[in-house]
Order: sequence, then structure tokens, then C-alpha cells
Amino acid sequence: MTIPRSHPRYRSLKTREALVEAHRDGRLSLEGLIAHGRGEAFNYLLGEETAAPALVAEKAAAAYLLTAKRPVLSVNGNTAVLAAKEIAALAKAIPARVEVNLFHRTEKRVALLVRHLRQSGVVAPLGLRPDARIPGLESARSKCSRSGIFTADVVLVPLEDGDRAAALVKMGKKVLAIDLNPLSRTSRTSTVAVTDEVVRALVNIERFVRQLRGRDRELARVLKAYDRSRNLVAVHRFLVWRLGQLRE
Amino acid sequence: MTIPRSHPRYRSLKTREALVEAHRDGRLSLEGLIAHGRGEAFNYLLGEETAAPALVAEKAAAAYLLTAKRPVLSVNGNTAVLAAKEIAALAKAIPARVEVNLFHRTEKRVALLVRHLRQSGVVAPLGLRPDARIPGLESARSKCSRSGIFTADVVLVPLEDGDRAAALVKMGKKVLAIDLNPLSRTSRTSTVAVTDEVVRALVNIERFVRQLRGRDRELARVLKAYDRSRNLVAVHRFLVWRLGQLRE
Repeated sequence: MTIPRSHPRYRSLKTREALVEAHRDGRLSLEGLIAHGRGEAFNYLLGEETAAPALVAEKAAAAYLLTAKRPVLSVNGNTAVLAAKEIAALAKAIPARVEVNLFHRTEKRVALLVRHLRQSGVVAPLGLRPDARIPGLESARSKCSRSGIFTADVVLVPLEDGDRAAALVKMGKKVLAIDLNPLSRTSRTSTVAVTDEVVRALVNIERFVRQLRGRDRELARVLKAYDRSRNLVAVHRFLVWRLGQLRE
Repeated sequence: MTIPRSHPRYRSLKTREALVEAHRDGRLSLEGLIAHGRGEAFNYLLGEETAAPALVAEKAAAAYLLTAKRPVLSVNGNTAVLAAKEIAALAKAIPARVEVNLFHRTEKRVALLVRHLRQSGVVAPLGLRPDARIPGLESARSKCSRSGIFTADVVLVPLEDGDRAAALVKMGKKVLAIDLNPLSRTSRTSTVAVTDEVVRALVNIERFVRQLRGRDRELARVLKAYDRSRNLVAVHRFLVWRLGQLRE
């Protein structure tokens, strides 16, 4: 079925098509499709644009990535399919390593996603040869790379599940989450919680990375000013307000 | 992966498993999985229970079904997979015909779903041999049965898309929708809009069917009292209130 450009939900339908295609060729799990549907609902409630408090969190995430010794962008199936180019651009801007890390890990899917990321401009994505484990997770989900997530001090985890975000925090890492549900365990556990759609969030974080680079005083100020709990309260208030507006 | 019964999201995860399984054996489209994710998010925001105004809409739906000359329950993939037994029980209680009607129609999927419904207790489900068309829809999506949806005066459409709900209303039918998004086109187009999860909605409608049967004055009162727009405003207010509470 060809979707006409005039359709009011054109972009949303094209995104769905890309995900369905990614499942068909083995890059995306079925659970990833259901997770995308949850994200769609929250994105719709947010009015499909970046809320002001999300922008504050995105700036904080940029500051953490710029001041990190070993920043890593963790990429799962949905992130790779939806935002490979944005991941490549952000990784280059920081610069940071990129590691494929899957909830429903199969070696074949990791290989397909690594290839997909490489084709989208990511330099030397990690994930194919995990040689370390995140403590506290089951075997398949704990696999990671020593030169990537395992020794990172700051990890960006878009669309991550709560268990893994918590396990990374327990390892002493700064965890930057991108999650459209401000009430999720991931959002409530991470160091920085960005409540925004993954493409918008990555584009904004990259812009802040470019703006903040080398400005040490401003970086320190941004890191000091960000308060996850207060920020999530603001996001939540925005969501309640938006939902109230949607009736009009 | 076996899901432990103690998991806080046990029911939700088991439901996802059932849908994934239904996709693997051909009963469910990939788009159906994404749609389920959207429903999950709204169900979560509603606190995973029936809101008071949804109960009012469910009672109105029961009254329409009881006073119909030719009531039909339209069933798509998600409804069949999630609620085949509840469809069978409701169809028996009214009594009503059941017709499989798919957005992403393939003859194989219709056959699998008809068999699935029959095994769940639905008597003679329609859908295998469509011999009529709903005006205003593209070819594959317009197919329906003359002895079912085409000549029905009241049609229950759980998890339906906005186009088809509107097309059925245009044919002069009373359309009873079950949709977790009170702001969706389906909800705003239908005669009755039930904002509830499909299993809860079907169980409640069946209970009202049993309570209201033969009580003509009460049936007339329920039909007269129900006002879709006012009811949706109440559902929407509840959702805004619930979202505000979720922070606690």
C-alpha cells in the first residue's frame, strides 16, 4: 500500500513502514514493534514536538557527553532503524563510540544492525564481539564490550528498558536515557531522562554538543542546574496540560 | 523467555507473548503489533481499569445491541487474538452474528482467524466469502458479507480504524466502537464510543446485555440518556485527572 503524502499521518505511517520492513529483514524484533506503538501514543500526547523541559534535559545530556572521558552511545534495534544517521552525526560530534546492545539479542540481528549503522556513517560500531558482562542482568542481556559500554563513564541509552538502565547506574556510570514515558522506570532511574522522540532528541543533543563545546563554565553550570526529578515533574505537568488541550 | 508470575507487568507481558505468537502463526499483521503498543500506553494511562464514563458507554452499547434487528460483531486480528472467548460469549448473549473484517486483509489470515474464532466458541463466523462492499473504502478493505456487516443495523467495531467506522456510519448504521484513545477519529465518528480495553469492554457489555434484556423502558432510557460527545468529554477529563495522579 502506497501512502499518499497528503495523509494527515503520513510521517507516522512511513515510520511504521520502515519498522515493519526492518522486522521483515531481521533487524527488528516483534517486541520492538509493540514498543514503538507505545512510543507513538506518548509522542502523540506530547503533540509530536519537543517540550521545553525536554530541551533542558537534552542540554544536560550534551554536557555529560562532552565532559565524559569515555562516552558511549548504546543502540538497540528501534534506535538503529529510526535514527541511524542521527546516531552517526552525534557520535562524530562528541566524539563517542557506538555499541549495539539488544534486549532480544541474537547474533544475526547484531550483525545486521552493525552493518546498518556502518552504512549510515557510524565508524567502527561495537557489539559483534562482546567480551564483558553488565552485573545483575541475565546472560544474554548482560553482554557488552570492554572497549565500549563496560568501561564507559557516560552512556546514552535511547529506548532502553528499566532493568538495564538501573544496572548501568549501579556500575557507577552516568546514564542518559531517551524515553517518551516520563513515568517509566528508565526515566526515574537514569542520571538524565530525556522525554522526547528519539530522532528529535538526538538532533537536539547534537546541536547542544556543538554549542557547548569548549565552554567550560557553561558546561559546569548546565550540569549543576539539571535536576532529574524536578525536570520530570515539569515534563509530567506539560503532558497533563497538553492532554487537556488536545480536546480542543 | 519464561515470564515469572511475580513480574509487576506479568499480564501485560503474557498478552504481548500471545500477540507475538499470533503473528508468528500468521493470524496477526505486523501493524497489529504496533497498534497494540499504542493501546498499551493508553491502557496504562487509564490505570488499566474501566473508567466510570466508559461504563456508561458500555451500557449504551449493550442497549443498541439488544434493540438491533441485525446486530453484528466485527472482529479484526487483534480482537480475535485478545478476546475470542469474550466475543463468543457476547455474540451468544445478544444473539449476534460475528464477521471477520481485516484492515490488512489476506485470505489466509481471514481463514486462520475464522478457525480461531470457531475453536473459541463462535458459531458460524462470517468473513470467508465476502459478497458485498462498504462504499467509500479501497477495494481490499471494503469487502464484507451481505448476511453480516452489509445488512446490519448495529455493528460493534472493536479496535477499528477511523475510515471504516466513518464509512459504516455513512451507510446509516449505528456503529459501536471500542477504542482506548478517546480523541481518535474512530471515537469521534462512532454512534457509541467505548474508551476501554477490549476484553474489559466486551465483558462489561455482555453483563449489561444480560441485565437489560426485556426491560424495554430501561433500554429506551439508556439509549436516550447517552450522549457521545458529553461522554467523551468525561472520559477525557478522567484521563487528564489519572495522568495527574500517576506522578504520586
